Amino acid sequence: MTLEVGVLGYRFMGKAHANALSRLSMFFPDAPDIERSVLVGRDEAALSDAADRLGFESIATDWETVVDDVDVFYNLGPNHVHAEPSIAALEAGTPVFCEKPLAPTLEDAERMADVADEAGVPNGTAFNYRFVPAIQHAKGLLEAGELGEIHHVRGRYLQDWLVDPEAPWSWRNDAKMAGSGALGDLGAHTVDLLRFLVGDDDLAGEMERVSGHLKTFVDERPVESETPAESRGNEDGEAVEHDEMRAVTVDDAYSAQVEFENGAMGTLEASRFATGHKNDHTIEIHGSKGSLRFSLERLNELEVLRADENRGYETVLVTDESDPYVDHWWPPGHVLGWEHTFVHENYEFLSAVAADDTFEPSFADGLAAQRVLAAIEASDERGEWVSIN
Amino acid sequence: MTLEVGVLGYRFMGKAHANALSRLSMFFPDAPDIERSVLVGRDEAALSDAADRLGFESIATDWETVVDDVDVFYNLGPNHVHAEPSIAALEAGTPVFCEKPLAPTLEDAERMADVADEAGVPNGTAFNYRFVPAIQHAKGLLEAGELGEIHHVRGRYLQDWLVDPEAPWSWRNDAKMAGSGALGDLGAHTVDLLRFLVGDDDLAGEMERVSGHLKTFVDERPVESETPAESRGNEDGEAVEHDEMRAVTVDDAYSAQVEFENGAMGTLEASRFATGHKNDHTIEIHGSKGSLRFSLERLNELEVLRADENRGYETVLVTDESDPYVDHWWPPGHVLGWEHTFVHENYEFLSAVAADDTFEPSFADGLAAQRVLAAIEASDERGEWVSIN
Amino acid sequence: MTLEVGVLGYRFMGKAHANALSRLSMFFPDAPDIERSVLVGRDEAALSDAADRLGFESIATDWETVVDDVDVFYNLGPNHVHAEPSIAALEAGTPVFCEKPLAPTLEDAERMADVADEAGVPNGTAFNYRFVPAIQHAKGLLEAGELGEIHHVRGRYLQDWLVDPEAPWSWRNDAKMAGSGALGDLGAHTVDLLRFLVGDDDLAGEMERVSGHLKTFVDERPVESETPAESRGNEDGEAVEHDEMRAVTVDDAYSAQVEFENGAMGTLEASRFATGHKNDHTIEIHGSKGSLRFSLERLNELEVLRADENRGYETVLVTDESDPYVDHWWPPGHVLGWEHTFVHENYEFLSAVAADDTFEPSFADGLAAQRVLAAIEASDERGEWVSIN
Amino acid sequence: MTLEVGVLGYRFMGKAHANALSRLSMFFPDAPDIERSVLVGRDEAALSDAADRLGFESIATDWETVVDDVDVFYNLGPNHVHAEPSIAALEAGTPVFCEKPLAPTLEDAERMADVADEAGVPNGTAFNYRFVPAIQHAKGLLEAGELGEIHHVRGRYLQDWLVDPEAPWSWRNDAKMAGSGALGDLGAHTVDLLRFLVGDDDLAGEMERVSGHLKTFVDERPVESETPAESRGNEDGEAVEHDEMRAVTVDDAYSAQVEFENGAMGTLEASRFATGHKNDHTIEIHGSKGSLRFSLERLNELEVLRADENRGYETVLVTDESDPYVDHWWPPGHVLGWEHTFVHENYEFLSAVAADDTFEPSFADGLAAQRVLAAIEASDERGEWVSIN
Repeated sequence: MTLEVGVLGYRFMGKAHANALSRLSMFFPDAPDIERSVLVGRDEAALSDAADRLGFESIATDWETVVDDVDVFYNLGPNHVHAEPSIAALEAGTPVFCEKPLAPTLEDAERMADVADEAGVPNGTAFNYRFVPAIQHAKGLLEAGELGEIHHVRGRYLQDWLVDPEAPWSWRNDAKMAGSGALGDLGAHTVDLLRFLVGDDDLAGEMERVSGHLKTFVDERPVESETPAESRGNEDGEAVEHDEMRAVTVDDAYSAQVEFENGAMGTLEASRFATGHKNDHTIEIHGSKGSLRFSLERLNELEVLRADENRGYETVLVTDESDPYVDHWWPPGHVLGWEHTFVHENYEFLSAVAADDTFEPSFADGLAAQRVLAAIEASDERGEWVSIN
Repeated sequence: MTLEVGVLGYRFMGKAHANALSRLSMFFPDAPDIERSVLVGRDEAALSDAADRLGFESIATDWETVVDDVDVFYNLGPNHVHAEPSIAALEAGTPVFCEKPLAPTLEDAERMADVADEAGVPNGTAFNYRFVPAIQHAKGLLEAGELGEIHHVRGRYLQDWLVDPEAPWSWRNDAKMAGSGALGDLGAHTVDLLRFLVGDDDLAGEMERVSGHLKTFVDERPVESETPAESRGNEDGEAVEHDEMRAVTVDDAYSAQVEFENGAMGTLEASRFATGHKNDHTIEIHGSKGSLRFSLERLNELEVLRADENRGYETVLVTDESDPYVDHWWPPGHVLGWEHTFVHENYEFLSAVAADDTFEPSFADGLAAQRVLAAIEASDERGEWVSIN
Repeated sequence: MTLEVGVLGYRFMGKAHANALSRLSMFFPDAPDIERSVLVGRDEAALSDAADRLGFESIATDWETVVDDVDVFYNLGPNHVHAEPSIAALEAGTPVFCEKPLAPTLEDAERMADVADEAGVPNGTAFNYRFVPAIQHAKGLLEAGELGEIHHVRGRYLQDWLVDPEAPWSWRNDAKMAGSGALGDLGAHTVDLLRFLVGDDDLAGEMERVSGHLKTFVDERPVESETPAESRGNEDGEAVEHDEMRAVTVDDAYSAQVEFENGAMGTLEASRFATGHKNDHTIEIHGSKGSLRFSLERLNELEVLRADENRGYETVLVTDESDPYVDHWWPPGHVLGWEHTFVHENYEFLSAVAADDTFEPSFADGLAAQRVLAAIEASDERGEWVSIN
Repeated sequence: MTLEVGVLGYRFMGKAHANALSRLSMFFPDAPDIERSVLVGRDEAALSDAADRLGFESIATDWETVVDDVDVFYNLGPNHVHAEPSIAALEAGTPVFCEKPLAPTLEDAERMADVADEAGVPNGTAFNYRFVPAIQHAKGLLEAGELGEIHHVRGRYLQDWLVDPEAPWSWRNDAKMAGSGALGDLGAHTVDLLRFLVGDDDLAGEMERVSGHLKTFVDERPVESETPAESRGNEDGEAVEHDEMRAVTVDDAYSAQVEFENGAMGTLEASRFATGHKNDHTIEIHGSKGSLRFSLERLNELEVLRADENRGYETVLVTDESDPYVDHWWPPGHVLGWEHTFVHENYEFLSAVAADDTFEPSFADGLAAQRVLAAIEASDERGEWVSIN
C-alpha cells in the first residue's frame, strides 16, 4: 500500500517536509511507501512551480476537497489556517500532521485536540526537535534516572532577525495570524522539548504554574511590496496587502519562570532580538546526579555530566551507530544537519499512520504546550503567577 | 603615611583580603602604604594562629575598641555581624569596607547606607567581580555604546555544594544569620554586576520591577560537630551549637525576571544545586549592536560580538598590557586568577581612602542591590511582580 | 538532455553519492537533469538490493560495457580498482568522477592523470571537503588577502576505529588494495584541502618538500567471516577470503613536516588510533594578518581571527544566505551535515559535465595530492626530507 | 633556620620568582622560612629600584661574591649568563635554581649538569609548567595507566609577538645570547612537559629520534634605543648597544617530528608568528585507553577522555580541594593564574633545599631537554632524522 500525502503549504516548512518525504525510501526502507500526491495553496502559479520542484503529482487551491481524498494530510500553513483544514481532515477520518504551534489561540487548539481525540486517527504536532538524535539520547539518560531528581531546567531560543527596526513586517508579527510572536514560534518548541525530556511523573512532571513576561521592542515595521510577507522562520507565509508601516501586535521576546509538579524550577526565554544568534535553541537540565546541555546550532553534540563518573561536562558526539536513528545514515563523526530531524519525524509519523497507531507528539501534546504559552501570556497581562490548569 | 587596617573575620574572606593587602607593594607601587594592623574575631586561639599566617601585627576579640583605633575597618564577618561594627566604625569616622551582601535584611542595609552617607568617609561594599579585567573591558565597550541599546540581560550563578542532602548545615543556611541563601550570597553579585554594566541611564538603567521565585530543596541538614559551621562560600563562619539536624531557613536557589527602566528584559538565577558547577557566574547581554558573554570560571576571557565587525562571538583574552589592571601583572596570555579581583578592589578602595575620595561600589550600591534582592523575595511571597522603589 | 550516470561501488561512497544525486532536483534546480542509470558491482544479489534502495534503473557486474554506455562514470570502488575502469571510461570519452585517493600508487595516479589530460573530458577527484560552505568561506578570505602572508599551516585528521587490536582486518589495511593507510585515506583529504586553501602562488604556493613519519601500531588483525571486508571509512569494500589473522601492510598513522614554495611551514598528521576522535579533520592557518581554524565535526563553523578587527577567534556560523551554497538550503542557523558536501560536489561536477567545462579538483589535483603522499612515504623510508618534484 | 636567597635577574622572571617567594608564608606554611636576601644585576640604579619593589634586603652587581654567601642561588638572567654563575655557585656548594633553557648551547648544559652532579647539592631547572595543578592531575592519570599505551603526543607553543616585522630586536633574537629562538624559549617547555608526562618507561619512554625544521621569517629587526632590549618573553633582558637594524640569528618558529622509545609518535611546534595567540601552550596525548588535552591559556582546565567511561572529552576544572596544591588556595571553582605555578615550583625546590633532597626537574632534566633541542637543530641542518643519544 502507498500512502497518498496531501500537503498544505509550500514555503519553508513545505520544503522541509517534502525533502523529508523524498528521503525515506533510501534511508528508512521500512517506512511505508508514500506518494507526494497533492500540494495545496492559493497562488496557482507559485504552487505549480513549487509542486514541480518539491516533487508533487498535482496541486489544489481548495483544501476542502483534498483533506478527504488523501491518506494523510499535512497542515504546514501559517498558524491561523491550522484549525479549520485540520479539523475537516480529522472529521473525514484522515490522519493529520500539523505544524507548531498547534493554533494561534488556546480555544482553537482545544477544538483541534478534541476533534483529534474523537476522530481516533493518528495525529501529530510537528515538534521536530524531539527527533534530534542528541535529544533522544538525552531522553534515554533521563528516563534511566542518570540525572536523578530534577532541580533546574533552562530553555532558551535566540534569534536576531528582527533586531533591525527596518526588518520587514510579516504575518509572524500579527496577532491574528500568528497568535503570538517569539512565544508561540520559538517558545512552543522549548515548552514541548522540556515536556518531552522531563515531563514524566518520576522526573519533573508537568509544568504547574508560570510567571511570564512579554515584550515588543519595535511597535511597527515596514511592509515590503515585492517579497512575500514571510521573511524567514518556521512556517509558510501568505501574501499581505501593501502599505507603508504595519503594527507589530505580537511579542518580540518573552521570558518565563516555571514551577514543575515535582518542585523543579525552570526559566524559559526566547527572542528575535538576540544579536548574533541565528537559531540558538539551548536546553540545560540539572538533576541531583547529573546535568545536561544541548544547543541546536551544534545539534550533533550533547554535553553530559554524570556526577558518579564525570567531574566536568563531557561533549558527546551523538553520531555512533548505536545512537538513535544514526544507523540509518553515516559512520561515526559524519554529522547530520537540521533537516534530518524532519526525516526522523516523518518516518515515525507515517509509520504510526501505516500501523494505525498513536503518535507523539500528538495534538494533545500540541494543546498541552499551548496551555503553557497561554498561561505565560495571561501571567504577563495580570502581573502574577498563573496555574496551567 | 601608613594606613592601619583592622579586619574582622579571618576565614575565607579574611584570607582573600589579607593576600590582596600583602601584594599591593610589589604590584601596585602607587597604592598607599598599609599595615595589616589588627585581626578581630572571637576564638582567641584560632585568631592568633590566623593573624600569624595572614601577617597581622595584633589581634582583638572586641571590635568596639578596634573600629575607632584603625585608619580603615574591613568587615568580613558573616552577614548578621555586618551592621553593628560597620555602623560603629562609620560613626567613629573610620572608612569601612564591608563584604557582600551588605546586610541580612533590607532594614539593616538602609541603616548602614544612611550612616555611611552621614559619616562622609569612604565606604565600600566588596563586590569584587567589578574588578575582573574582562568585566572592566565589558564596561568600557558598553559605555562606548558598542552594544547599542540594551534588550536582554542574563545573569546566572551556579554552584553545587548543597546538592548532597547530607552536606552539613552552616550559618549560610540560616535566615537569621545569612538573611537569605543563594539569593543573597550569589544573587547579590549578579545584581551588582548588572547594575555596574548596564545600569547607566543611557543603557538599561536601573532595575524597575521583578518577579521572583525562591526554592528550598532540602529542608534540614546535619550539623557537623568537629568542623566549623562555615563549610565553604564567600565569607567567614561562626561556631554553631551541635545537634543532629538543623532547619534550612533560606533558599537553595532563586530565579527572577527583571524589567529595567529603559525596557530591557532580564532573567536572573542562582543555585547551590547545579550539579557539576563550582563557581559558574555567567553574564550575557544582548544589545541592538552587539552581544557579550562572561563566565567567572574563565575569567580571563570575554566573548564579544559587534554586529558591525563580527558574525560570531570573538573570544577575547583580556590579558593585554592595555587591558584594565593587566600592566601591573604579566605579559599577554599569562592569565590571572580569582584572587586578583581582590587586589584590584583593595587597591581602588585604599586609594580612595588615602585621597578621602568616594569609592564605588559604595554602601549605597550595596543597598541598591539589597533592594532588588528584597523585592525578589517579596515577589516570591506575594506571587506577583514587585516594583523596586 | 538527461545525463545517464553509471556508478561503480554501492557501499559507503555509493550511498553518499546516490543521495547527493537524488537531491539535486529539489535544491539545485539549475543542475543538469540526471538519471541514476546503472549501478556496477560484483555480487549480483547485494547489487540488486542496493540499486533498489539507492534508486538505480539497472545493474551491471561488468564495468567494461558500462563505461562506454553512460554519460558520466563515477568510480567509487576501493583504491585498487580506481585506475582501469577510470582509464577505460576516459578513453571512451566518458567524463569520470573518481573517489580519493586517486590511486593506490603514484604510477597509477600518473597514468590516470595523463589519460584524463589526453581525453579532454571533464574529470574529477572526489575531495568533497572543498565543498563545505565554511571551507569555501575560508578560501574566500584567503584569496582576498585577509590573512596576509601565510606562515603556518596545520592539518590533522583523527579517527580511532583501529585502536582496538581486535578491530577486524579490511581492505583498508592492505597495501595492495589501499596503497597506504591513514596516509592515503585521510592524509589525501588534508593535502588536497591545504592545496585548495593556500596553494595559490600569492599565498603559500605548492608544497615543496616534506619529512614524513609512518607507523603501524598493530601488525595483524583478525578477519571476520560474516561481515564484508569493509568495516567503515570512506569507500566501498570488496569481499575477502576468510582466515584467522591477516597482516596489516599499511600505516595506522602518519605525520609530516612540510615546507611550502613561499616559505610557510606545515605539520600534517592523521591517525586511526586517536582514541575518542571519530572524524576529526582540523585545519589551522596562521598568516601575517590573521588566523583560521576549521574542524569537520563542527563543519558549519569557521573560526576566524583578523588582527585588524579581532583580538580573538570569532566563531562564524557559516549558514547565512550569502554563504556559499547556503541559499539553496535553509535559513540562517539551520545547520547542514556531512552529506551536503557531496550534493555541492556533485552539483559542480555535473554542471561542468553538462557545460563540457573543466572541474576542480581534477585528476591532475588528485595526482598532485598523490605526489605529496608518495614523497611522505619516501621520506619515511629514507629518513630524510624529500622534494615533491 | 631561614634560607637566604640570592637572585640574579630582576625583570620578568625576577618579578615572577620574587612574588612566589613572598607568598609562601601565607599559603604554604610548611615551606622553609626564606629571606629575599640579595638581588644581583649590572645597572645599579635599576637594581636598587627593583630590590625595593621586589622586597630584597640588598643588592650586588658582582655575582661572584654572592653565590658563595647565600643559602640558595637563583639564576634568572638571560641564557648566556646561565652557565658561569650557576657553576660557580654549585662549586661553592650552594644549591642553584636556574631558568630554562638551561644554557644557550648543549656544551654549556653538559658542563652545568656535570658540575651539578659532582656538587651533590639540590639543583633545579625552572620548568614551571610541571607545577600547574591540571598538569599534575594529568600526570596522575597517566601514571595510573588511565590512558593505556601511548600512541600520539602533540605539543604546541604559540605566540605572536614577532609577527610584526617592526617588532624590536632583543637578546632573544640573538644566537650568542639566547642560543636559539622559539625552539629554546618555548620548545624547551614543551619538551620538558612531554618528558614529565609520558617519559616513564611504562608510558612512551624518552624521545629517541627527531626530525626538525627551523625557520626565520624576518631576518633583521630595528633596535629600540629607549626601551630595554627585553620586550617580553620568559626571562630577564640585558641592555644592548643601539644601532638601526640588527640581524635575527635565531629561529622564529620550529616544528619537529619525534619517535619515542616505546614507539609513540609526536609532533612539536612553536612559533612567535602565530597571529592572535599570546601564550598558547597546548599538549595533547592519545593512548590506547584515553586521551588528554591541556592549554596554558585555560590552565585551570584539563580535558580528559577515558574510553571506558567517556564518549567525549570531559572538561575537568582542576580546582577541587583534592587536586594538587589546590587545598593551599581557594574553594572549588575559584581559579588560579599563571603565577601560581611559580609558587608551587618554589615551594618544592626550597623544601628540597631545606631537606637536602633532590629536586625534579633537575639540571639533568634541563640537559635532557637540551639534548632534544640540539638534535632538532642538527636535524634541520642535515635534513635527516637525528638520534637523541
